[in-house]
Amino acid sequence: MAGMLIECVPNFSEGCRKDVIEKIVEPFRTYEKCYLLDYRADPDHNRLVVSLVGEPAPIQDALIESSKIAIANIDMKSHTGGHPRIGAIDVIPFSPIKNITINECINIAHQFGDRFNKETGIPVFFYEDAARTPERKRLEIVRKGQYETLKSEIQKTERKPDIGEASMHHTAGATAIGARKLLVAYNVNLKTSDVEIAKKIADTIRSSSGGFTHVKGIGLSLEDRGMVQVSMNITDFEKNPIYRVQELIKIEAKRWGVEVGEAEVYGMIPQAALMACAEYYLQIAGFNNNQVIENCLLDIMGDDVK
Amino acid sequence: MAGMLIECVPNFSEGCRKDVIEKIVEPFRTYEKCYLLDYRADPDHNRLVVSLVGEPAPIQDALIESSKIAIANIDMKSHTGGHPRIGAIDVIPFSPIKNITINECINIAHQFGDRFNKETGIPVFFYEDAARTPERKRLEIVRKGQYETLKSEIQKTERKPDIGEASMHHTAGATAIGARKLLVAYNVNLKTSDVEIAKKIADTIRSSSGGFTHVKGIGLSLEDRGMVQVSMNITDFEKNPIYRVQELIKIEAKRWGVEVGEAEVYGMIPQAALMACAEYYLQIAGFNNNQVIENCLLDIMGDDVK
Repeated sequence: MAGMLIECVPNFSEGCRKDVIEKIVEPFRTYEKCYLLDYRADPDHNRLVVSLVGEPAPIQDALIESSKIAIANIDMKSHTGGHPRIGAIDVIPFSPIKNITINECINIAHQFGDRFNKETGIPVFFYEDAARTPERKRLEIVRKGQYETLKSEIQKTERKPDIGEASMHHTAGATAIGARKLLVAYNVNLKTSDVEIAKKIADTIRSSSGGFTHVKGIGLSLEDRGMVQVSMNITDFEKNPIYRVQELIKIEAKRWGVEVGEAEVYGMIPQAALMACAEYYLQIAGFNNNQVIENCLLDIMGDDVK
Repeated sequence: MAGMLIECVPNFSEGCRKDVIEKIVEPFRTYEKCYLLDYRADPDHNRLVVSLVGEPAPIQDALIESSKIAIANIDMKSHTGGHPRIGAIDVIPFSPIKNITINECINIAHQFGDRFNKETGIPVFFYEDAARTPERKRLEIVRKGQYETLKSEIQKTERKPDIGEASMHHTAGATAIGARKLLVAYNVNLKTSDVEIAKKIADTIRSSSGGFTHVKGIGLSLEDRGMVQVSMNITDFEKNPIYRVQELIKIEAKRWGVEVGEAEVYGMIPQAALMACAEYYLQIAGFNNNQVIENCLLDIMGDDVK
């Protein structure tokens, strides 16, 4: 389908050797309709994080090619680094951006998991929305004890992979493949220096204490600025839109006579997350995303490219 | 410059002959980084309106090629139609979309006007922000009396073209070339059936009666819906952002105990016009448009295309 866009952020266990990093990234530059947005290698984590956007098919093709390069160059037996990991191609999460649902991304994760195992021999664990058991939704459960522990426990019933044999790849370990909606990192600063207020509000809005299902949040002090912050991850901005979360924060803050100083979008955000807020506050009815000039252009360029 | 984007909406005086329309449009399909968003021919107006987005250079090249086809196929001496016009290539307005200012678009209009006259022999009038005299800012002044009147008056001092000799092209007449910011057509519906309230509010917000400089507006009755509407054109959404106009409408409506029922974006809108509203209402500080995933993608695709 024209204009079907996903995001994929594969993480590789190599953050030091520049030549290896470039080799791993190279396939993401060469496939049509696979766009390399960014890649960052962290030597302390000894980890490479790649941000891709594009159509599902070329992204998967590029992932296979890139994974084979990672396998040829990374040996988990001698890998060290500060970030939890279970394999050379540690995690591969797929997220919907445009003209595609989260359920379709779950299907992509499952089909890609099969292909990935067939072509590389690496055992696959499905996580987050692609998980086949409730506990594997949490990546920290899948990665518990990391590569070294999983190597000795992979034959236990509760740690067997979802795809492939119950033994680690001799050099590349295992891979977690997942699907998730795009996460929005969003902070709201409050005009008070009393961090307890931020903590109380975080408590009312986050899922873990009974608030919005798809909001994680903590209260922090911004000492330099004499303000406090409700710092959040919104893991489903369609079900828990930013405006609704923020309006509830305002209502709770009023209880303490406190106002919002400013808000902050941290990192990348899908256009739709902010458009939904404009539509809400302006009370716009019947808006179609194709009325946005840039979206039309993106569709046309997508059909045109290369 | 990579990612410099303009909009251009040339209007041609042909709305009936499909083969001619297709010939005129064809060059806009063939130049790299010139994207044909839409074209509409109206037989009653006997007019073709083409919507282009892309980089300035290929759009100008395509315009020259397309104009030569229009000249070869349209004879203004026998042209009739309901829409005011002075030539076969009636108007060519340039508007900034991305990484370009209105002043740069004015320069494009002026340079293109020179080239257009040299390559076609058609006299050029500059209008709107590209006008060289205050009265020519208004297209209706440039087009006063249309083709037929201009033909006999073009030698008069006040009607001489800005570029070229003071005589019409023998078949293609004259062309108005302009620069303007993108226009946002925006309507706000009020929960009352009293059209006088919409008229009074339109009067307070529009430029012509002392309101916002870049807002045109009228009050209308929506009889089917039992509501009234403040129907607007915002001709500079950066200087008169939508949220500010709408909040003032709300404040004025309160005077009559009336609330906003809904708002409507009519036609195309630049992403920035709505993003500014999300930023305002959410009190987002320090936001960068490159944090929007789709914008990153548009930049990358723009560098990549064809």
